[in-house]
Parts: sequence; C-alpha cells; structure tokens
Amino acid sequence: MEPAGLQFIGVLHGDITSREDAPKNFAESERVGTLEIYPEYQEGLDGIAPGQTIVVLFWLHQANRDILKIYPRGDRSKGLHGVFATRSPVRPNPIAISELKVLAIHGNQLEVSGLDILDGTPILDIKKKIGR
Amino acid sequence: MEPAGLQFIGVLHGDITSREDAPKNFAESERVGTLEIYPEYQEGLDGIAPGQTIVVLFWLHQANRDILKIYPRGDRSKGLHGVFATRSPVRPNPIAISELKVLAIHGNQLEVSGLDILDGTPILDIKKKIGR
Repeated sequence: MEPAGLQFIGVLHGDITSREDAPKNFAESERVGTLEIYPEYQEGLDGIAPGQTIVVLFWLHQANRDILKIYPRGDRSKGLHGVFATRSPVRPNPIAISELKVLAIHGNQLEVSGLDILDGTPILDIKKKIGR
Repeated sequence: MEPAGLQFIGVLHGDITSREDAPKNFAESERVGTLEIYPEYQEGLDGIAPGQTIVVLFWLHQANRDILKIYPRGDRSKGLHGVFATRSPVRPNPIAISELKVLAIHGNQLEVSGLDILDGTPILDIKKKIGR
C-alpha cells in the first residue's frame, strides 16, 4: 500500500523565524499569528468560532527525518531518547500538533494564539479538540 | 515546495474491523490492540514506558479525501459542518490523532488501550503527550 501524497491546506504567517526564538511547545506560548487556509479548502472551516481551541497539524518542512534518537531540548545530561518518546520536530514524518486558540476569523484567515511554529510552515489539517 | 512522501512506521493490529464497530473517538474507547513498529524504526521507541499515555498519528487510508462538508456522526439534524470543525475521518489529509495508554512493550510491539481505529491502519508517528 503506497501512501497518497499530502495536500497542504494552507500556510502559517507569524513572527517566529528561527528555532532559537520558538517556544518549546504550544503549552508554553502566547505568540499570535494567522492561519491562511487556501480558498479551495475554506468551506471546511464552517463551524469554527472565535474563542474555541482547535488542534492544528503542521508539516515541519525543515525538520530532519533521518534521526531516531535525540537529546530532548538539546539537554545532554538526560541522555539520548527515542524521538517517539518526545515532541521533537525530528522524526520520520515531521508532523507537529498544536492546540491553538482562535482569536478571530476573517474569511479564510484564522487569527490564533499559542504558536510554537515557524513562519511559513505548511498546514495539513485542523480538528476539533476533544478530551478524555 | 513539494511535500515529501509519508513513511509508514508501523501498523495497528486490533479487533475493530468496520466503521460501524468503531468507537467514535479515543475518549469513548477501552478497546485494546497492538502497535507493531517496523524494526527499522524501533530505536525511536526508547523512553516509552508502560502506564504512559502516548499520542499516536494514524493514516486513515480508507477515508474520503475529497469532501469538505459532513454531517457530524451522520446526524443530519445539526446540518452540514466543515470537516475542520470536526474529528471526522473525512478530510484532505486523513490523519487521525489518538491518545492511547501503553499497557505493555515487547520489543517493537506496544500493547495499547483506547483504540478507535480500524485493524490494519498504518501508523505515522508517536509523540509524548503534553497539556496546557
């Protein structure tokens, strides 16, 4: 079974332009930015409302895909960890999951807060948040 | 920018064989199964421990990718919703997110509970769970 190709549904516009400037994850971020959803996918946004928390999947196009062991947050004191035991961007399929708060919606543009993702990163998906 | 292809890191073995038999989501499931991680990716599991909750990304290879509006859970009384406002498997990139409890680890096999995914579904990624 061959996987079908990914479709980028949009792109993130934000002010995080380097790994050094990026919060370590969404739970530690108040950074704001805009999800630009391409017009052909805009219809899929119907039902999303300001104030809601959404789950957004990004394709980390700059991440290394060939490494399976890393030092979490670059801290060598804790030893090497398997990437699947971490949230590192390094992994075979560099898909990031961010829980973001919707501040405003203008057509195909969603203003969000909680960003830990670099400006220009492609967007793969948006989902409703659920909890156990 | 062309997206690189996905790599399947493993496959799910479980007893859910039809959409009708599948729990609506992980938060409503106690179903158990096994994540078989292919040997070439096994090293990435180091650091995952029984008792832990992990975030698993699946590629829903049977899902329709061409529909942007659906009736949530098939309920027509609430009208059509954009797929990005829901957890429907129907979406341009049919990636599912499940939070699963690790029951046991045997080499490259992870026994998990909380499954809402069909037997035979490819696995894309495993991440540590975090919360805000």
